[in-house]
Amino acid sequence: MIQRKIINDPVHGFITINHPLLFKIIDHPYFQRLRRIRQMAMASLVYPGAVHTRLHHALGAYHLMCCAVNELKNKNVEISADEELAVKCAILLHDIGHGPFSHALEHIVVKGVYHEQLSLKIMQLLNNEFNGELQLAIDIFTGKYHKHFLHQLISGQLDMDRMDYLSRDSFFTGVSEGVIGYDRILKMLSVSNNQLVVEEKGLYSVEKFLIARRQMYWQVYLHKTVLCGEKMLVNILKRAKEIFDLNDKNIVLNSPLDYFFMEFDGKINDEVLKLFCLLDDTDIEFGLKKWSNHPDKVLSTLSRNVLNRILLKCKLESEPISEQLIQSKIEKTKERFSLSGNEISYFVFTGETTNTIYNVNDENILMQMKDGSLKELSALENSLIHQTLSAPVKKFYICYPKN
Amino acid sequence: MIQRKIINDPVHGFITINHPLLFKIIDHPYFQRLRRIRQMAMASLVYPGAVHTRLHHALGAYHLMCCAVNELKNKNVEISADEELAVKCAILLHDIGHGPFSHALEHIVVKGVYHEQLSLKIMQLLNNEFNGELQLAIDIFTGKYHKHFLHQLISGQLDMDRMDYLSRDSFFTGVSEGVIGYDRILKMLSVSNNQLVVEEKGLYSVEKFLIARRQMYWQVYLHKTVLCGEKMLVNILKRAKEIFDLNDKNIVLNSPLDYFFMEFDGKINDEVLKLFCLLDDTDIEFGLKKWSNHPDKVLSTLSRNVLNRILLKCKLESEPISEQLIQSKIEKTKERFSLSGNEISYFVFTGETTNTIYNVNDENILMQMKDGSLKELSALENSLIHQTLSAPVKKFYICYPKN
Amino acid sequence: MIQRKIINDPVHGFITINHPLLFKIIDHPYFQRLRRIRQMAMASLVYPGAVHTRLHHALGAYHLMCCAVNELKNKNVEISADEELAVKCAILLHDIGHGPFSHALEHIVVKGVYHEQLSLKIMQLLNNEFNGELQLAIDIFTGKYHKHFLHQLISGQLDMDRMDYLSRDSFFTGVSEGVIGYDRILKMLSVSNNQLVVEEKGLYSVEKFLIARRQMYWQVYLHKTVLCGEKMLVNILKRAKEIFDLNDKNIVLNSPLDYFFMEFDGKINDEVLKLFCLLDDTDIEFGLKKWSNHPDKVLSTLSRNVLNRILLKCKLESEPISEQLIQSKIEKTKERFSLSGNEISYFVFTGETTNTIYNVNDENILMQMKDGSLKELSALENSLIHQTLSAPVKKFYICYPKN
Amino acid sequence: MIQRKIINDPVHGFITINHPLLFKIIDHPYFQRLRRIRQMAMASLVYPGAVHTRLHHALGAYHLMCCAVNELKNKNVEISADEELAVKCAILLHDIGHGPFSHALEHIVVKGVYHEQLSLKIMQLLNNEFNGELQLAIDIFTGKYHKHFLHQLISGQLDMDRMDYLSRDSFFTGVSEGVIGYDRILKMLSVSNNQLVVEEKGLYSVEKFLIARRQMYWQVYLHKTVLCGEKMLVNILKRAKEIFDLNDKNIVLNSPLDYFFMEFDGKINDEVLKLFCLLDDTDIEFGLKKWSNHPDKVLSTLSRNVLNRILLKCKLESEPISEQLIQSKIEKTKERFSLSGNEISYFVFTGETTNTIYNVNDENILMQMKDGSLKELSALENSLIHQTLSAPVKKFYICYPKN
Repeated sequence: MIQRKIINDPVHGFITINHPLLFKIIDHPYFQRLRRIRQMAMASLVYPGAVHTRLHHALGAYHLMCCAVNELKNKNVEISADEELAVKCAILLHDIGHGPFSHALEHIVVKGVYHEQLSLKIMQLLNNEFNGELQLAIDIFTGKYHKHFLHQLISGQLDMDRMDYLSRDSFFTGVSEGVIGYDRILKMLSVSNNQLVVEEKGLYSVEKFLIARRQMYWQVYLHKTVLCGEKMLVNILKRAKEIFDLNDKNIVLNSPLDYFFMEFDGKINDEVLKLFCLLDDTDIEFGLKKWSNHPDKVLSTLSRNVLNRILLKCKLESEPISEQLIQSKIEKTKERFSLSGNEISYFVFTGETTNTIYNVNDENILMQMKDGSLKELSALENSLIHQTLSAPVKKFYICYPKN
Repeated sequence: MIQRKIINDPVHGFITINHPLLFKIIDHPYFQRLRRIRQMAMASLVYPGAVHTRLHHALGAYHLMCCAVNELKNKNVEISADEELAVKCAILLHDIGHGPFSHALEHIVVKGVYHEQLSLKIMQLLNNEFNGELQLAIDIFTGKYHKHFLHQLISGQLDMDRMDYLSRDSFFTGVSEGVIGYDRILKMLSVSNNQLVVEEKGLYSVEKFLIARRQMYWQVYLHKTVLCGEKMLVNILKRAKEIFDLNDKNIVLNSPLDYFFMEFDGKINDEVLKLFCLLDDTDIEFGLKKWSNHPDKVLSTLSRNVLNRILLKCKLESEPISEQLIQSKIEKTKERFSLSGNEISYFVFTGETTNTIYNVNDENILMQMKDGSLKELSALENSLIHQTLSAPVKKFYICYPKN
Repeated sequence: MIQRKIINDPVHGFITINHPLLFKIIDHPYFQRLRRIRQMAMASLVYPGAVHTRLHHALGAYHLMCCAVNELKNKNVEISADEELAVKCAILLHDIGHGPFSHALEHIVVKGVYHEQLSLKIMQLLNNEFNGELQLAIDIFTGKYHKHFLHQLISGQLDMDRMDYLSRDSFFTGVSEGVIGYDRILKMLSVSNNQLVVEEKGLYSVEKFLIARRQMYWQVYLHKTVLCGEKMLVNILKRAKEIFDLNDKNIVLNSPLDYFFMEFDGKINDEVLKLFCLLDDTDIEFGLKKWSNHPDKVLSTLSRNVLNRILLKCKLESEPISEQLIQSKIEKTKERFSLSGNEISYFVFTGETTNTIYNVNDENILMQMKDGSLKELSALENSLIHQTLSAPVKKFYICYPKN
Repeated sequence: MIQRKIINDPVHGFITINHPLLFKIIDHPYFQRLRRIRQMAMASLVYPGAVHTRLHHALGAYHLMCCAVNELKNKNVEISADEELAVKCAILLHDIGHGPFSHALEHIVVKGVYHEQLSLKIMQLLNNEFNGELQLAIDIFTGKYHKHFLHQLISGQLDMDRMDYLSRDSFFTGVSEGVIGYDRILKMLSVSNNQLVVEEKGLYSVEKFLIARRQMYWQVYLHKTVLCGEKMLVNILKRAKEIFDLNDKNIVLNSPLDYFFMEFDGKINDEVLKLFCLLDDTDIEFGLKKWSNHPDKVLSTLSRNVLNRILLKCKLESEPISEQLIQSKIEKTKERFSLSGNEISYFVFTGETTNTIYNVNDENILMQMKDGSLKELSALENSLIHQTLSAPVKKFYICYPKN
């Protein structure tokens, strides 16, 4: 008899797992680790519901993949049983390389390495363990497989990753309304010339999707308070690293995190990967708690403040922050908290952040017109998503202590 | 100008905070700590969405309190501005005494002490800090205040605590449908003879509420896999305690949790309380990760297994587990894992669990008939909630390793 | 290429139509007629959203049938392509015999005939028109086909009809929360010994379903105001019939309805059926508007009052209405409105109404235990649905003019 | 005691009515008439759920008004009890002048008169009946009252009418996701210089609102099949009018509609208004049914086809329809159906339709920046709603028989 398991998902309803290889992936400690990594890092500082996990997102994206594959098969797109299984495995594993606090600490904890690289390496590790059962999944993931549209379902303008995270994040933050729309886009997906395309009548749904994405970026992911919390966290790790470098015993956590602070040299081998796969949000959070009492004032203050949600003030502007404002904030802070020059930079700092609603130069969205021809989304008449909107929007921020 | 803050809640919509005392409570580290305590302990092992926090629940219950107070005032129930503020503070703080993993580890971490006692003591601590501003809230919380119905809004058959946790838990697990119903019950609340009552036409909603509660208990809170996960966690703490007692250095976490393992003598003073207020789920989770490598086989195996979701098998039965079954499981486990007699009890164990849908002997639900008279819920004709259903349902479980 | 159409349904999402026979049914005037028959007759007097149509319900039940058939096939239940199509046709057509105002005027407009009989006859009419393509659908509908479980999907305790109308009615009234639950029951359906059964772990969902049904009956379908509106409508038709019998020209509507008032003799042949298939809510509503000005005081008053929502007062009681109360209401009304004895009965009247939550003697719900054995629902331990609840609940009503 | 009634609304939850004047309006036959006028005319041809009524919309808009007024009062905007009641009455009555099939037949049934004019006249009629109790409501409705923002709540870019119809229509069609967003806009409303404004942080919600509106226009209100159904209906009335003019007895319906076909001379007095207030969708639908058998081929064919959803084919294009295409369709139709030149125009016809997402020249949306200054929406940096999008989009359609 076929093993079959149903998982309740408040976002998509019921998720069905029905193949031994899928069970093997899900039951693996590397995958279970995603249970302890929040999808949205510090966003719960503003949206208390946003505490859902990477594991939940991976399952959700897998579910959407099941739906998408079904739709395509109903439209007579050829997808073999092996390809179907592989593309499902690939989406389950697409985020396996995320570390503690996901994007917020990406290439900070594992210095200079992006999560996609780690995902691939961990998939390869698993592939060895599973005797090559994941090879096709890996080929699809890396784009080597000849059916390009399968890769696009995993990574592209309308991939299952985005579809899931936007609906899931909007569901858990309560910001949005975006859940149902994805349904319709899935119904409108098709394949033409080995490319994933959207039927013309899906135009408004695709627009809605892009607008929703824009809204989620500015209202949630790049919300100034969320941004500020994440930058404070980055500063905490930076400061901790400095103290680690001084060989201070008090900073040690007795966690694999210590390795990445003290010994990691940028080279990723199997041993390093296995250590990485022991890390999750807990290590950082325990660090914050421990470091709250560390003698270093910068480290302990920042840690305590992040834990207790005593955040710096953050201004997000369209123009670069004026040198004058920065100086005045530095002066004020220096006086008030009697900090040294280097220390100040942990409490008063600036940066910029960028978002592009739809990048025409990037791989773009193809619409399939009623006559069968293909048009790039922004080339459609009356498209909301025209050239102007495809330019990146840059914003500048400054963070400093409330007075 | 009045400070006013709006919080997005996916369950109830927007929550408004609009009084300095409320801000003071919410901003306090004791309250912020609830951010790091999951509402449903191990339930996310089965329902991956169930990772919402005690902080979120406290805010939600506060929101329902705002609605309930509004409704009652619209019905000309006298509630002064002071009383209104106090009852809102009391509901915000009603769970402040929860420790790591909430109910799952209640009176395990702080041996023999229930969370209500701790909530009261922490409220008193805060009351001192706030120069008595919380006195009325405390009097309502403890039931000393003469307007009994205010206490019932916080603790009673239809209190805001239950209304929130049922709708919130059903929302985040995706099990349920219960969200909207509460709205209607709130509209039906009234006060008669200083008692909270429900208007007769609210009967079906109240029934639905009780049935939903029953369903949540058996399908979620006491789901055999959730139960099993929580009992495994309890066993881990028990084992850790034994090892602490041996003065083993490896067991120490460098967390306030160590104090409760090693030194706590059952007496709660301000110092103990403050230590308690440093604890949250992180301490336990970090413990699990650390203890995964502890030389003690029982501790490391259980810890690793909980982290990686390798759970014991659990049977939940209506009859007591037969001595024969227990013995056979013990024998099998002993052989297979070469464990000693004492060690076996961490892997093969039994217990019982009870749920009562509606306890008539307890404080019960009063319905206000159209003619103004009051009737106890189960006394209504054709009530679904009759005497039979008010008996407790007891179930018996056994957990043992999968073979 | 396969024709394929997607219909937006706010309740279930997207409904897919993908077979020529299904299109032929849906495009037929007999089916399109259901667009003009409200699903819930007079319920919109109380629940203004409850104006959805029989056509919408038929499409929704069809959609659930698609889901159910899919689930069963996934569980290796044998269902051939022909059977699948037939059971889908049968559910599309199961309510085709409903006349104006559905249940409210059932066997009033077409005296003494129930809608199921009419549904069957109309299916046969269509079957002739479609050259026998509907024969298997008819055999399943009437229960003659050997695979009994297919019939149960159309008509049984857990049929797609009920699943759809409960979720749809709760959605459009805004009373309920029932939408999601059906999903889970569908996932739990299976077939054993040619019977539709529910897997044991679906117990709570089935209970919820029955309780939701009970709630919908008492809170919506038999809501005293809805009941009153429907009985007033019945009285209007009764009165109109009396006037038709007097050969009064003013009563004639120039609608096929006239035939059923004046000539119908209880015998249903193809000609009668075709006339019946021209009727819908419009005929009655236009009648109400026209009769508002009829010289007969009873007819005009009742018609105007139903149109303008000036309803009689209705009391719904558990005990039979006392003769004394009836007499007092009759006296009062007689005086106030100067009505004759016969006329009074249109304004003061009594009746009874019955609902059974779960009839054990009827075809009942079979649960499939983990060991494969079957148990009748109420026989399960701790079942909410025990013997007591399976007794019918009878209520008595009296309607009379407000003073 | 205060009379208080709660109405279930699937869109907004519970609607509370709590003032005698509100009851008087709602209970009036003019208002109850809205029960029999569908909000979205023929949209249910495409979206079967879209059968909700003008009455439901009026109650929903009233509910949002209650919320908006509450929010503004919380922000210390001065609104007296009289003003509050008046603005609520005004919104309840804003659509009271809609006739059968709302916009689809606007100024067709009552030739050349728009519904706003009729709304005002009916309000005045009611005001007389209610001894002037509606005077302030009328002054707000017409914009004469000095507090301009009250008028804007009823008629403006962000009025309660739009907020309700967009959320309600999206809910009942199942197209959308728009329900929750309105909540947030309401929270962001404020008043500055007697103008309704939106706080800066509401920017994304306002954008979403406008985009949702655009989507609803193109995907629903101006959906080519809906458009086609409505134009066919207009043609039916046009044809009926021609036949009325011939004094044909068969065309008469014995409905007040006859008056508007035969006698109405464009002058609206109280008698005409009272006749108008007897009209609703039923009159038209009964007409369609009766005219299905009329000897005039054009009238009977169109009527039957609309009833049975046998619609013309409709093409919606960005460029004007070519004369060549029109001629070819005319020729083809002429031959196939042997129609005369005049008759052809009922089956082959063209037209254009326009929608503007945000008209900057019109009364526009003012955003209140954090520093208190006001900016027009499209003037904000990175606004999605820039000059380009504020241009009207025009589309051209042709309808003709399917071959």
